[in-house]
Amino acid sequence: MTITPPPAPEAAGPRVPRTPRGARTRARLLEAAEHVFATVGYPDASIVKITEEAGVALGTFYVHFAGKKEIFDEVVGDLSHRVRQAMSEASGRGRTRIEAEREGFRAFFRFTAEHPALYRIIRQAEFVSPEAMRAHYASIVDGYAEGLAQARERGDIRAVDPTVAAWALMGAGELIGMRWILWEQADDIPEHIYEALMDVVQGALAPTTTDERPAR
Amino acid sequence: MTITPPPAPEAAGPRVPRTPRGARTRARLLEAAEHVFATVGYPDASIVKITEEAGVALGTFYVHFAGKKEIFDEVVGDLSHRVRQAMSEASGRGRTRIEAEREGFRAFFRFTAEHPALYRIIRQAEFVSPEAMRAHYASIVDGYAEGLAQARERGDIRAVDPTVAAWALMGAGELIGMRWILWEQADDIPEHIYEALMDVVQGALAPTTTDERPAR
Repeated sequence: MTITPPPAPEAAGPRVPRTPRGARTRARLLEAAEHVFATVGYPDASIVKITEEAGVALGTFYVHFAGKKEIFDEVVGDLSHRVRQAMSEASGRGRTRIEAEREGFRAFFRFTAEHPALYRIIRQAEFVSPEAMRAHYASIVDGYAEGLAQARERGDIRAVDPTVAAWALMGAGELIGMRWILWEQADDIPEHIYEALMDVVQGALAPTTTDERPAR
Repeated sequence: MTITPPPAPEAAGPRVPRTPRGARTRARLLEAAEHVFATVGYPDASIVKITEEAGVALGTFYVHFAGKKEIFDEVVGDLSHRVRQAMSEASGRGRTRIEAEREGFRAFFRFTAEHPALYRIIRQAEFVSPEAMRAHYASIVDGYAEGLAQARERGDIRAVDPTVAAWALMGAGELIGMRWILWEQADDIPEHIYEALMDVVQGALAPTTTDERPAR
């Protein structure tokens, strides 16, 4: 999955800390919240648990966030921004389109291994904050589809619909990551699974030598 | 997505109704639970809500199910069985492998449109009942991979890894269905989106005329 660089995160909400210390506290709260939401789930996550995990006073929470839903949305936005950034940086290193795809998928799997919270949090967002979940998917797809459209323009890939291909390949990466990283609690995707997926991706995207595909 | 016929649902738990009336009540409870879990989510779903929606007495619930987790697992198993059955019947109508794929995906999208609960329930199963979620995915993939392995044997598709390709294409179908059916609350997938996805699927699976793929 290859994506263009993400824009800066949305305006960081109403409460931007003015001091370095405030910024550190805010970051600690976000990190703690990521862990608590991923571990116990949104309904059982409490602000008390988050502040205890972050080691800050309960009252301090409200200096930075209006409530549980607000910090949840920021955790989703933050994870989403970081995974896009990792994929964008990696895919920029590919010299050809297929190389860029390989690097992008690899970065996605690496991020998944390091942040298993990504899946668990995005999936519960469907109930808790559907708008945050849609924004996450849409921002990944936008960048990905743009990259595919440019590659198609150059003749580097065949004439797929860039948006549909982006959703389809993102879905492929998501379930492969779920199966071979999350379920196995693995540090990385097994190499032969990665190569088998890249073979499918290359088949889906690589230009054919003839216009006619085999009519099966 | 083409799958072999699913086995009969797992032994229906400890409480199989002995009378037609009992079976009808049990089916009503399952249907009500599907709706309640999909609408308010597992944490807010109560047995009272489910029995009210089913129009049966609270005590009757416990004749059929041991508790909330047990009926949730049965709802997942039931949805999973039905979507596999729909896909298997449809793909059996395809005369070629690509036709079978087309029919299988179409049946999956139709089922998604008729049962939006499938997504919402499977996604929350990640927290509520990870074993039910894994069983759902694994049973779809097993049948799908078996079909791909047979097609590969016959030379109908190229030498993809059947299991990896099954997970990847299932992921593609899942996100396309989420984007164009669930998010749009649509009755069916738009035809041009379906054709664009089929183009990607065909590229991923169709045999190439030469062994060497373009080295991009």
